Amino acid sequence: MKIVGVRRLHAGSGIEVAALGEQPGEVTVIAPLADFWADPAGHLSRPPAGETLAITSIERVPPVLPDARVICIGLNYLEHAAEGSYRGQDLPPYPSLFARWTQSLTVDGAEVPVPSNEEGLDWEGEVIAWVGAPLVDASPDEALASVIGYSVFNDLTSRKAQKLTTQWILGKNGDRSGPVGPMVPSVEVGDLKQGLRLQTRVNGETMQDGRTDQMIYAVGDTLSLISHTLSLRPGDLLATGTPAGVGYGRTPPRLLQPGDTVEVEVERLGVLRNTVVGNERRSANDFRAHK
Amino acid sequence: MKIVGVRRLHAGSGIEVAALGEQPGEVTVIAPLADFWADPAGHLSRPPAGETLAITSIERVPPVLPDARVICIGLNYLEHAAEGSYRGQDLPPYPSLFARWTQSLTVDGAEVPVPSNEEGLDWEGEVIAWVGAPLVDASPDEALASVIGYSVFNDLTSRKAQKLTTQWILGKNGDRSGPVGPMVPSVEVGDLKQGLRLQTRVNGETMQDGRTDQMIYAVGDTLSLISHTLSLRPGDLLATGTPAGVGYGRTPPRLLQPGDTVEVEVERLGVLRNTVVGNERRSANDFRAHK
Repeated sequence: MKIVGVRRLHAGSGIEVAALGEQPGEVTVIAPLADFWADPAGHLSRPPAGETLAITSIERVPPVLPDARVICIGLNYLEHAAEGSYRGQDLPPYPSLFARWTQSLTVDGAEVPVPSNEEGLDWEGEVIAWVGAPLVDASPDEALASVIGYSVFNDLTSRKAQKLTTQWILGKNGDRSGPVGPMVPSVEVGDLKQGLRLQTRVNGETMQDGRTDQMIYAVGDTLSLISHTLSLRPGDLLATGTPAGVGYGRTPPRLLQPGDTVEVEVERLGVLRNTVVGNERRSANDFRAHK
Repeated sequence: MKIVGVRRLHAGSGIEVAALGEQPGEVTVIAPLADFWADPAGHLSRPPAGETLAITSIERVPPVLPDARVICIGLNYLEHAAEGSYRGQDLPPYPSLFARWTQSLTVDGAEVPVPSNEEGLDWEGEVIAWVGAPLVDASPDEALASVIGYSVFNDLTSRKAQKLTTQWILGKNGDRSGPVGPMVPSVEVGDLKQGLRLQTRVNGETMQDGRTDQMIYAVGDTLSLISHTLSLRPGDLLATGTPAGVGYGRTPPRLLQPGDTVEVEVERLGVLRNTVVGNERRSANDFRAHK
């Protein structure tokens, strides 16, 4: 099952959570967004029972609560750490966590603008985990068991802004810079330690090719650590970091330009495909739109 | 005028924006939260015309959109930078920006728990600026002119979590760790460059005593910089950093313990008072509550 967020066109209604249908042109509604996240395990234990809608009648949006925390692990694959900030240094004993706001998220198919201050956008193919239960001072096992699903994620990065100071978050929150694919329930995915293959392609050329069993910090351990400082709740997200092969670590460096297509594919989770556009496609009225 | 967020008890309604009344026991509703932020300047140009409610019939909440960005400047007063990470080093040429999620925010009077991983909480008295207009590639003057109001803010910090790696955000998002005072419209406050006095007191003892004209990075310059990477919208927040005198920089270091009271007072903005409680006051069901 693949879970998405939808907003009905011409209806003025809120976001609903839906399942992609057997037929490619349809989705079946599961529940309104807040209802879904009040009991995600319950909703996913039953077949979707809501209305079936033609995809031409909806806009796709991330199925994410507006005040969800999007917590990202910065350096979680050894070879990526070596190509970036930790070249020649020991790894820190804890995961480097940075923040995205939900406003930076978008969906499969969205056009992502290069901000005016940048020479391009860098790709970071990832898996993102969806927290499905409240976590307060949770053990790693409890934390891992709470994960209700996984999605493909592209942590598209404004490298100049990221590197202005020691703190990365400005470069990690560009408009529509965080495409999230449909959520696949954990029961269908299994544990990331099994080693799902993760590939990133730019205009068809493979740039990253890793496996999720190469992660340094496991999902359960990281969520447990976080929950000892801040209480997690259903709908919060953990982006698990990217393998080697990002653009700024290449010789010569390469960044995404307007017109480029970037795809992230993860075994069992699917393909996330986005195109890059120019800064003129940012606008004050349109910056929350997804296309 | 002092602007607050309210939720009516026993009404099941959403958050509304209101003005503290002439009478201390009353608030007068201005608009529902999303309506207010669709046109904050318009709403503030008219006297509040909604219902007047007894404060005993409401819960106070921050008047903040759930998906607002809370962008924080890390080191914005020379003497504070010197007591912390930049002791003996040159300052970076750009403001160090880190992120809070809105779920970490709370109100005047709230009890703030010390997370289980910490030996206490550190205080950081600040001024927070409320963005009142969309900003895309804005000039510093445009950005400053968009600021619709200011509040007292306490950026209560979990120092151990903040210092686990180079990235600070885990230690900056503890439950209820960001109390925000009522918003005072910019037209009543003026520019921070005039030098508003900012004091932080712990159990009545003054710990920080600075002036807002000591800031290194001005509000307009910083919002302009941000708007060249991500589009800001009404309701986004900029926390402007703290002056010297935080707890971990003292000899010996001192951190807030359960039972302590911390007050931040800023000229023209008022006093923000919170008490500290133990980790046992965090709970999975209660972590969004404000009292």
